[in-house]
Amino acid sequence: MIITSVNNQLIKDTTKLHLKKYRDSTGLFLVEGYHLYEEAEKVGNIKAVFTTDEGITGDKVIYVTDIILEKLAQTKKPQKILTVCEKIKANDLSDKVLICEKIQDPGNLGTLMRSALAFGFNTIVLDNTVDIYNDKVLRSTQGAIFKLNILEMNTIDFIDNNSEYKVYGTSLNGAPLKDIKTSEKLALILGNEGSGISKGILNKTDENITINTTEVESLNVGVAGSIIMHYLMS
Amino acid sequence: MIITSVNNQLIKDTTKLHLKKYRDSTGLFLVEGYHLYEEAEKVGNIKAVFTTDEGITGDKVIYVTDIILEKLAQTKKPQKILTVCEKIKANDLSDKVLICEKIQDPGNLGTLMRSALAFGFNTIVLDNTVDIYNDKVLRSTQGAIFKLNILEMNTIDFIDNNSEYKVYGTSLNGAPLKDIKTSEKLALILGNEGSGISKGILNKTDENITINTTEVESLNVGVAGSIIMHYLMS
Repeated sequence: MIITSVNNQLIKDTTKLHLKKYRDSTGLFLVEGYHLYEEAEKVGNIKAVFTTDEGITGDKVIYVTDIILEKLAQTKKPQKILTVCEKIKANDLSDKVLICEKIQDPGNLGTLMRSALAFGFNTIVLDNTVDIYNDKVLRSTQGAIFKLNILEMNTIDFIDNNSEYKVYGTSLNGAPLKDIKTSEKLALILGNEGSGISKGILNKTDENITINTTEVESLNVGVAGSIIMHYLMS
Repeated sequence: MIITSVNNQLIKDTTKLHLKKYRDSTGLFLVEGYHLYEEAEKVGNIKAVFTTDEGITGDKVIYVTDIILEKLAQTKKPQKILTVCEKIKANDLSDKVLICEKIQDPGNLGTLMRSALAFGFNTIVLDNTVDIYNDKVLRSTQGAIFKLNILEMNTIDFIDNNSEYKVYGTSLNGAPLKDIKTSEKLALILGNEGSGISKGILNKTDENITINTTEVESLNVGVAGSIIMHYLMS
């Protein structure tokens, strides 16, 4: 199939996927570039591929013009391929779970997802975070999103329903990381960039962790979370 | 002083600081927002302050219009204050040194500088990195730049002239982090996002470190560097 008009209904509908509302109602999301296309192909959740690259073939491929590609993309100089994917369905919990509560910066959430995958935290629970299907999150996850088990859930509900998991929070008055013992089944909660973990949640954790620093300023949550996950992995 | 014309020579000259060439030739750089203005004030390296905020006073303050402020700024909706600072002069080496070789992403360099300060790596050696006075780096350092000792130097020169420092590199075939012993005087080298540390340098390190991950994919250099600095701090 070839589409040459920017007014084509499919192009219009696909462009709407830039908005969370339409991602939510359709269960679809859009990724840019060759790397994420290849990752999606491995997972097998591709709905359609828009490209100007004749080297890409298959029954889901739709050839378009440069102008249409630019309209569909959210970066200024997009690669020649955009893929519409189905959202990834949730599986059973892994032994190590990362809970993100109210993380709002797309780059931070993306970094955390990439590190989570690297350190064996294969399930991510999202509690009121920025939308993970936001294009900036997708770019910074570097494809990790296709390999993770992702659930949207209230943190308190997670704690109440998974008593076999040891739950770690982070706070400025917690125990130093080096004194923390890891656990086979565990969940690590990371909170909002500005305000940290909500108080009602912090009271329900088994242990709260502080990363000692030489300065008063706090660490970036993507960095802090990665340091703790790396420590708890072993 | 009040300036109302965008064609004013001082405004034109200040706008040129968006370019590395002019930052290099003048020894000046530009920071946006209240937080970085306050940090610069503590250091005492302010050359001029451009603002529309009458609450800001002092002999270096120049009041301007919104249009001029937007011209001077590099963000779309700038805060009401822009500060011209003198570049920070280098001091003696601290016991822990971070060497960044060919780091190219401004966000990564900013993250590393913030973590370096947090973990006591108070000297940063820059070897062919993105310009640290680039506005994106400045924003992600969160003011750490004003508290660090920053040198531009070739990595090989650093190693050859500082034999009392134990030098750690990072590579995919290094020793696992948990087996690494820290040292009182040490330098950690981090390399380019795509290609890692240059080979000629990797052969001159005392030890090379690998962070074990569960997946083939490598970690973000800002995350990897932060994990190692946190480990070596203790």
